[in-house]
Amino acid sequence: MARKIIIDTDPGIDDALAIFYALAAPELEILGLTTVFGNGSTQMSTANALHLLEIAGRTDIPVAHGAERPMGMAFQGGAPQVHGADAQGNLFLPAPAGKPVSMHAAQFIIDQVMAAPGEITLVPLAPLTNIALAFLLKPDLPQYIREIVLMGGAAFVPGNITPAAEANIWNDPEAADIVFGADCNIVMIGLDVTEHLFLPGSRLEQFASLGNPRADHLARILPCYRDFHVRQLGLDGIHVHDSSTISYLLRPDLFTLEGHPVRVELTGLGRGKTWPAVGRSDVESAWAGRRPIQIAVKVDADAALALEWEHHSRTLGR
Amino acid sequence: MARKIIIDTDPGIDDALAIFYALAAPELEILGLTTVFGNGSTQMSTANALHLLEIAGRTDIPVAHGAERPMGMAFQGGAPQVHGADAQGNLFLPAPAGKPVSMHAAQFIIDQVMAAPGEITLVPLAPLTNIALAFLLKPDLPQYIREIVLMGGAAFVPGNITPAAEANIWNDPEAADIVFGADCNIVMIGLDVTEHLFLPGSRLEQFASLGNPRADHLARILPCYRDFHVRQLGLDGIHVHDSSTISYLLRPDLFTLEGHPVRVELTGLGRGKTWPAVGRSDVESAWAGRRPIQIAVKVDADAALALEWEHHSRTLGR
Repeated sequence: MARKIIIDTDPGIDDALAIFYALAAPELEILGLTTVFGNGSTQMSTANALHLLEIAGRTDIPVAHGAERPMGMAFQGGAPQVHGADAQGNLFLPAPAGKPVSMHAAQFIIDQVMAAPGEITLVPLAPLTNIALAFLLKPDLPQYIREIVLMGGAAFVPGNITPAAEANIWNDPEAADIVFGADCNIVMIGLDVTEHLFLPGSRLEQFASLGNPRADHLARILPCYRDFHVRQLGLDGIHVHDSSTISYLLRPDLFTLEGHPVRVELTGLGRGKTWPAVGRSDVESAWAGRRPIQIAVKVDADAALALEWEHHSRTLGR
Repeated sequence: MARKIIIDTDPGIDDALAIFYALAAPELEILGLTTVFGNGSTQMSTANALHLLEIAGRTDIPVAHGAERPMGMAFQGGAPQVHGADAQGNLFLPAPAGKPVSMHAAQFIIDQVMAAPGEITLVPLAPLTNIALAFLLKPDLPQYIREIVLMGGAAFVPGNITPAAEANIWNDPEAADIVFGADCNIVMIGLDVTEHLFLPGSRLEQFASLGNPRADHLARILPCYRDFHVRQLGLDGIHVHDSSTISYLLRPDLFTLEGHPVRVELTGLGRGKTWPAVGRSDVESAWAGRRPIQIAVKVDADAALALEWEHHSRTLGR
């Protein structure tokens, strides 16, 4: 039986990779895409989520529009320099044919989880605002979630949007600290592993010849993301941050996890930093009472990238 | 010609190792020991500094008593569980015969540096309060200092007193942020390398048979420090944190440095964290205008430990 997941997303170029990767995996059943700000506005995220499902011929999957601002500050303006001004590589696609469901993303998550208690895995690829709102709306929700497998954070490596913080967490640190404090199983796939998952430029150029509509779209949007990596990081290729969660769902054995309670820094230079409780514990602990988060610290990168590539080249069966 | 150094210290068991190591190196001329709180109170540090010089037969070296509290909070109480209630392994030695000079440590540093401009290296093994006070008293002092080689901070690894912070920096983050912002050459020897400099228990047991008064004292105080490592870290042996600065002064080629501006976190969970400015810089930078700090990120541990051991076994020539 396929594993039921809800992808919470701000697509986003690497979100598109992750969503198409998941759509090509029969082991996963996507119950819905919930949207949030991050790489662009929530409006953009919803339009792009609908577009991606139309491209994949999967308009049967609902999209729920979510939070339009972080919990503790204004929307920070997205990442046009990374994902394009439309968050899809500056393609400026026409409006999608479909519409989101009428329900807020947080309510969609609550309803889906409560309809199949203990069965649903949340896969957040974006700021954790919708998940935190769902937990605030229904405080016992965490216990009905099978697992959260999220892309975000940097435990033992520097950040990517500041020296301290990874972008998804930095875009709503207050929400992230709520989620990391929740009483459920959480796997954190952060920069500790995603920066080892690198698709080189030569590989990106092959998307155009894979001959399926998903890969055709990726071939059009990837150059923008690749340009950012070349310009800003001096790397010809891309990190498949968001896709790492899908690789984890399909092949958890490729990842090494370490369990530590995590708190999110809310102030100062480190705002948005995910702090694992490591080292000496004889100073009074702000981490007390938190469950360990399973932090991915190592990945078999070659195997994960090969798995992802194989999925992008598939023709969807349905 | 020997290199002129002033050691700023809170002895402390690994401070004792570092001071005796430096005293055995003819390449170094110790102009004075300046004292500060940290492992114990400043009173303890001054008494212990005088004792260590008496043990080594080097009462010609002056001791200057320094700051008794951090800049932005109360003294945090020291580390009796690490260094003993007297900061020298619970030996409770009688009062030393000597006395500190009448001048404050910060003034001592200023006077020494200005008497030999461009020649003096500061070697802080403790909270950076005295150095920051000297810079506040005389703002152009940094330009007359040859170099600061300090033990403190954790750039790319977790802290040791909190998940974020190394103990010396945590004991006065405000002072550390002043020093890291100063216009002079600074080498930061932090946990990134010192946690790789490990003397095993079997080695510690050999101090008693080295047959010099310095090693005899070390043999008496090291069991306390070793016990802490066994109990708290599960390691039978010790990290020679403070000695690492002396190894660097004698053999800088054994260390790999990376230059990044550094700021110290003053608030939140990460208080005392040394943040190097790495990663993307397109978010407005709190690091702007700071000179790069040379951060030690790698060390040839075997060579550094062998060098230190060889010095502890020397009989002092004078």
